Amino acid sequence: MYKLIKKSGKARRGQLKTVHGVIETPVFMNVGTLAAIKGAVSSMDLKEIGCQVELSNTYHLALRPGDQVIKKLGGLHKFMNWDRPILTDSGGFQVFSLAGIRKIKEEGVYFNSHIDGKRIFMGPEESMQIQSNLGSTIAMAFDECIPNPSTREYVLNSVARTTRWLERCKIELDRLNNEENTVNKKQLLFGINQGGTYDDIRIEHAKTISKFNLDGYAIGGLAVGETHEEMYRVIDAVVPYLPEDKPIYLMGVGLPSNILEAVDRGVDFFDCVLPARNGRHGHVFTNSGKINLLNAKFELDDSPIDKDCQCPTCKNYSRAYIRHLFKAKEMLAMRLCVLHNLYFYNSLMQEIRSAIDGDYFKEFKDDKLKLWNNKA
Amino acid sequence: MYKLIKKSGKARRGQLKTVHGVIETPVFMNVGTLAAIKGAVSSMDLKEIGCQVELSNTYHLALRPGDQVIKKLGGLHKFMNWDRPILTDSGGFQVFSLAGIRKIKEEGVYFNSHIDGKRIFMGPEESMQIQSNLGSTIAMAFDECIPNPSTREYVLNSVARTTRWLERCKIELDRLNNEENTVNKKQLLFGINQGGTYDDIRIEHAKTISKFNLDGYAIGGLAVGETHEEMYRVIDAVVPYLPEDKPIYLMGVGLPSNILEAVDRGVDFFDCVLPARNGRHGHVFTNSGKINLLNAKFELDDSPIDKDCQCPTCKNYSRAYIRHLFKAKEMLAMRLCVLHNLYFYNSLMQEIRSAIDGDYFKEFKDDKLKLWNNKA
Repeated sequence: MYKLIKKSGKARRGQLKTVHGVIETPVFMNVGTLAAIKGAVSSMDLKEIGCQVELSNTYHLALRPGDQVIKKLGGLHKFMNWDRPILTDSGGFQVFSLAGIRKIKEEGVYFNSHIDGKRIFMGPEESMQIQSNLGSTIAMAFDECIPNPSTREYVLNSVARTTRWLERCKIELDRLNNEENTVNKKQLLFGINQGGTYDDIRIEHAKTISKFNLDGYAIGGLAVGETHEEMYRVIDAVVPYLPEDKPIYLMGVGLPSNILEAVDRGVDFFDCVLPARNGRHGHVFTNSGKINLLNAKFELDDSPIDKDCQCPTCKNYSRAYIRHLFKAKEMLAMRLCVLHNLYFYNSLMQEIRSAIDGDYFKEFKDDKLKLWNNKA
Repeated sequence: MYKLIKKSGKARRGQLKTVHGVIETPVFMNVGTLAAIKGAVSSMDLKEIGCQVELSNTYHLALRPGDQVIKKLGGLHKFMNWDRPILTDSGGFQVFSLAGIRKIKEEGVYFNSHIDGKRIFMGPEESMQIQSNLGSTIAMAFDECIPNPSTREYVLNSVARTTRWLERCKIELDRLNNEENTVNKKQLLFGINQGGTYDDIRIEHAKTISKFNLDGYAIGGLAVGETHEEMYRVIDAVVPYLPEDKPIYLMGVGLPSNILEAVDRGVDFFDCVLPARNGRHGHVFTNSGKINLLNAKFELDDSPIDKDCQCPTCKNYSRAYIRHLFKAKEMLAMRLCVLHNLYFYNSLMQEIRSAIDGDYFKEFKDDKLKLWNNKA
């Protein structure tokens, strides 16, 4: 159950109550595709760096180790030893971006596993069954993530099908939540708004899915090649047509500056692989912009990545040490940078929440963007 | 300063006071070749798993990031944020095992860097200078680690040169410890006994180096292809000829069972890459022997690696989860297993110390060996 606590402009401060605890929003979810954060970060580490929600990928876990295995082991929470909320995506995005040759039909999608090429079928019911087996806190509806650019006709047809799939998802998850041996009988369902960069299709679809009385609504199909300006325009267009008493989740976004802009437009949930991926390459966020630790100028720099940062990395290690670890190809390098970057994002969200609570979000956003100077 | 506290049979319970704290012996040193434990284990983790002494490699650090860089950054302790004792090896072993074409002369060794092939010279003075720049707690004397097998003539000549090198090491380290801007002016020096598997040469050399009044004595050149029985025979032969009031360090050993046998013969210090290397491959130690987590039978095993283990891995994660992480090629898999294995070794040493304190070492050793059933 979502509760809107406070607004600062259009920015929303809220709480989503779940069976795994309350999520304070706006929130950034930390991506652990295969039930682990890449970079040797454990669920214990996630607690230390202030992660509220872990996000795992349905498609990946269905292939390895298999959702039945995870169900037998008591669900994803027990499997990875994480007792806070978990959101699982629907598998749709990965089917479209990772799998081999695929065929989209009314019943669902036929595709080849990216691991062994095996022919697999996934439709709305299968996606719900897998997510129910995983027992995540929030399940995402199965949709088609439309490539950009696409013709108006393609988008119209795809969105209509995504709506029909949503209906099937809702029916199937209701059924699963009422079954005897379901891992999490209070699994929530978020629907996904699509429509490419066609504002009118987006708005029409937002109105349609709003009637489903879901637990939350996502804006999907963005951050797939369109400009930041197009993305912000779509958010501006869609948000007014989504229910105000439900959380809004902008999927796969993004840079810290994107998050500030989206919060300013009413978005509550975010996720992105960017902080972890950047970290694994030595690109780290600081309060004065992003820096590349591989740079030779850090060879003798005994200061932490960010002198004001309270993350486990900055409290204990210097830029020079981490640079050495990268040069020496020590895995610890990646781990320290991923920890720092995720902490940076989680702390940014904490600051955003405080700024909305104190009704100074606009100034906060402007100050941050100036501080980062287009470097984040 | 070493203090012998208690003996149980020949097993010795002692303390080595250093400028970085007291080392309780027998001790297993955790190997962090490049100032980091392989497997994304940080110095913070080392504290959590009960590591007393970290061991870094002089040869590796001299090449990358360079001992001058580390000295400028305040020494190895500050560089890697580790305030407990550090032992550095002499570089000798790596020069002989890793470097390209090499030439051994009276003055030292000419070799090619394994990184870029660059021609480098290292002799006793250079080894001491590098270790002094690193500022480790204990420096090792520069020696030749003799290949096994070697002819009696080769071994005699090599050992005589190692003795001459030891004299030069002592003079050079004394000089460095008295210099103005030395990182650690109380750096200790351990000499190394060599002689291959020729007991009489070993004994003669032990007698000779004992006269140098060093801070400790190592038995080198073992665990290089000889049988366990030969190794134990050499230890039995040499230990009586090393000073009783100094710690004895068996280099590069070994399996848990090897450690028990060596403690039983009077050895105080150990180091080995084996627990970390095994861990990175999913081979983990338990109180009933070693197991391979990649094995299919662990797919649905929700028990910890070892149910009696108090390490961070066993307190939080199951065999099934760790197996999945290996299958999914998640770095976290290696980290969790390295943490477990090092904890296993560090705890074993703690148990050994208690057994000597309580004068039941012999029974303790027999029980352990039976429990492990030749699997560790």
